[in-house]
Amino acid sequence: MMDTAATNPREARLAMRRGAWTGPTTYKVPGYVQCNLVALPKAYAYDFLVYCQRNREACPIVDITDPGDVVPRYAAPDADLRTDLPRYRVFQNGTLVDEPTDVTRYWREDAVAFLIGSSLTFDEPLRRIGVELSPEVWVLETSLPTRPAGPFAGPLIVTMRYFTPEDAIRAVQLTARFPWNHGPPIHLGSPEAIGANLQAPLVGPPVTSLPSDKIPVFWACGVTPQSSALNAGIEWMITHSPGHGFITDLQADHFSQP
Amino acid sequence: MMDTAATNPREARLAMRRGAWTGPTTYKVPGYVQCNLVALPKAYAYDFLVYCQRNREACPIVDITDPGDVVPRYAAPDADLRTDLPRYRVFQNGTLVDEPTDVTRYWREDAVAFLIGSSLTFDEPLRRIGVELSPEVWVLETSLPTRPAGPFAGPLIVTMRYFTPEDAIRAVQLTARFPWNHGPPIHLGSPEAIGANLQAPLVGPPVTSLPSDKIPVFWACGVTPQSSALNAGIEWMITHSPGHGFITDLQADHFSQP
Repeated sequence: MMDTAATNPREARLAMRRGAWTGPTTYKVPGYVQCNLVALPKAYAYDFLVYCQRNREACPIVDITDPGDVVPRYAAPDADLRTDLPRYRVFQNGTLVDEPTDVTRYWREDAVAFLIGSSLTFDEPLRRIGVELSPEVWVLETSLPTRPAGPFAGPLIVTMRYFTPEDAIRAVQLTARFPWNHGPPIHLGSPEAIGANLQAPLVGPPVTSLPSDKIPVFWACGVTPQSSALNAGIEWMITHSPGHGFITDLQADHFSQP
Repeated sequence: MMDTAATNPREARLAMRRGAWTGPTTYKVPGYVQCNLVALPKAYAYDFLVYCQRNREACPIVDITDPGDVVPRYAAPDADLRTDLPRYRVFQNGTLVDEPTDVTRYWREDAVAFLIGSSLTFDEPLRRIGVELSPEVWVLETSLPTRPAGPFAGPLIVTMRYFTPEDAIRAVQLTARFPWNHGPPIHLGSPEAIGANLQAPLVGPPVTSLPSDKIPVFWACGVTPQSSALNAGIEWMITHSPGHGFITDLQADHFSQP
């Protein structure tokens, strides 16, 4: 338990590396950029990168490794992406085969790892400007299509938080400053308008009704490219487990636009 | 002459297509996103795209074509990238071989075209908020290195404009809203601090002294990836001619962050 109270990224990653931190990173290690992980064989990397560019709100790329390199040399030059996340998902031919805390034995020589900015990054800045955060960060599928590239296609996935209308306005202002962590919301108000079903979230408990003084706000989510890779049924992919992000050395405030 | 007064992108591109507009696009067709062009053989596209990601301030990607496709389907779905820029540069093995107004005869079947956001995009918004624009937009080499990828490496190239200090502050504020067109400046004040020589610009007349009430402001420039591709000496590359950008259908204001 104590390990998840780490306040610097290196300490947090080392706790994950030795298996002492296997839980979520939501609202943890405040102040640092958190990322989603997608590792794929090099043969798919170009199409995947084009897919990310074509859907930049969902897939802002923070770092890319060279093939065979397990070190994110820009985002955290002393990290090892095979061990330094709390929990992973391993997919083979589009099927989840394992959800381990270390993927060293699964890693491939031709793997390219993509770190994709996560909206978990701006929760601490939101809190700091006095926005009252919702108890959870939900992940939901929508009916909005993404722009395809090669085998990658599928619906836009979003995160949802809820706020008072006044806080929602301030959340728009603040998150617009974080274009590499999804930027401003893509929608607020009616979940139905974007085909999101609050009673069947991908992550988080089902929501039957929101507090009457709150409004739901939706950001494009880095789970989108994972989902598209899964739809493509590619032979090998490793991702973070939802809510279990990679904590970089990059300071969230420094990574924002002025 | 009259053609360069076009106020909508399609009209401007058609004038370029028929050879009636062969001059610069600086301060032209206000209100629309302007882009730099880099077309490369598919074999280089992955490394080039990683290079762009690793140097995102200089190389924000607005659109990428599929190999063999000459239509930027997101940025301007009725355009043809072989004819719809006013002037191009054709490079073979790192050497400039032609600077034509139509590159149809040079185009390759395996070409991938990248459209990279240009700072020319925010000149009109700057003017609209009352910032007095400098008479030119200079392009300068710096001594700042970029982060390499594959064969692509080299110095950061910047654009320079000068303003009163008060306008410089407002320019920082405004351009921060345009992350896909280089975002905020990377430097202001001393050119020497970033190794820029005002007496030897890549584009624009040599500057011996600035007006005493003005301060120079520097933005990462989309010529950077061109320059790195040139250093790499790759066998075939087509780019826009400096200052002769591609005018997209994307509205600059819609493309900014709120």
